[in-house]
Amino acid sequence: MISFSELCRLRQSCRRFKTDPVERVLIDRCLDAARLAPSACNSQPWSFLVVDQEPWRSRLADAAFSGIYSMNKFAKDAPVLIVVLTERSRYMARLGGQFRGVQYSLIDIGIAGAHLDLAACEAGLGSCWLGWLNARAVRKVLCLPKASRIDLMFALGYPADSRVRVKGRKSLAEIRRYAGAE
Amino acid sequence: MISFSELCRLRQSCRRFKTDPVERVLIDRCLDAARLAPSACNSQPWSFLVVDQEPWRSRLADAAFSGIYSMNKFAKDAPVLIVVLTERSRYMARLGGQFRGVQYSLIDIGIAGAHLDLAACEAGLGSCWLGWLNARAVRKVLCLPKASRIDLMFALGYPADSRVRVKGRKSLAEIRRYAGAE
Repeated sequence: MISFSELCRLRQSCRRFKTDPVERVLIDRCLDAARLAPSACNSQPWSFLVVDQEPWRSRLADAAFSGIYSMNKFAKDAPVLIVVLTERSRYMARLGGQFRGVQYSLIDIGIAGAHLDLAACEAGLGSCWLGWLNARAVRKVLCLPKASRIDLMFALGYPADSRVRVKGRKSLAEIRRYAGAE
Repeated sequence: MISFSELCRLRQSCRRFKTDPVERVLIDRCLDAARLAPSACNSQPWSFLVVDQEPWRSRLADAAFSGIYSMNKFAKDAPVLIVVLTERSRYMARLGGQFRGVQYSLIDIGIAGAHLDLAACEAGLGSCWLGWLNARAVRKVLCLPKASRIDLMFALGYPADSRVRVKGRKSLAEIRRYAGAE
């Protein structure tokens, strides 16, 4: 078992996967972690469409990551793709969000996604956040309603390379300040 | 040490805190977990202003959580308040986000916030996400630039009650579907 700090250190974007399929019990474990995430007014404005079988997987990958979206074409080789559907928040969260000028549902799928991502890492899986995707083509190939919002997908699978890379991040001093300290 | 699944189960919104101060080494541990979070184009569009000393803490709490924002007035009794500043994403992330109609920086502060939140739980601290706050008054009382964006704050402290409540969440079957399965 590993500490949470260690989990944050081990977690990294995985862009090369083994061809091995991923057991659905592991996929469900990741989604259960996402399920428990907090959200504005407990709206839980998310649902997950898991695509781990052919021919859907290939069709989805081609739809999502071709043309100007081919920066993420590595995801075509991921054995599992998860489409995150951003659902409507509860009325109070939408109203408050409009008043404040903040789309809380985006923060919320960030939280749920982080839970999913970290759970994947703990399960020995590699994952990658995918925000740059052709949502219209995805809706079409998966026969999703036109109104469905697809802000995010994940690629999931066993990592082809398990080395932990050094993360390029700002230092703590650059991002944190204590009020009153100069 | 606890598993990540267990951490997700234990994590809950804390709205009653002990008066004990929180060691800065623990606050920094939470922020270090946030620091390591992934973000669109590795933009890391976040910074954190920690307010754990008087008179700033009380002034901030009064500014943020009075009037129509007093739903969150419980946070006035939290020994630590953390203001999350949403910073500008990198040019490519902003451009892509505009094209896609998705404000990636909100997803990103959701991810970083989730890391902070879970790290707090592992450290034995209670935390609460605060999205409903008077950003203008916060900027004024902390002398922050008018352009600074405050979408999120956290309340942090030792929980007055450590019982784990049952979470009201949708079931896995309600939020997850496998493509091809009917």
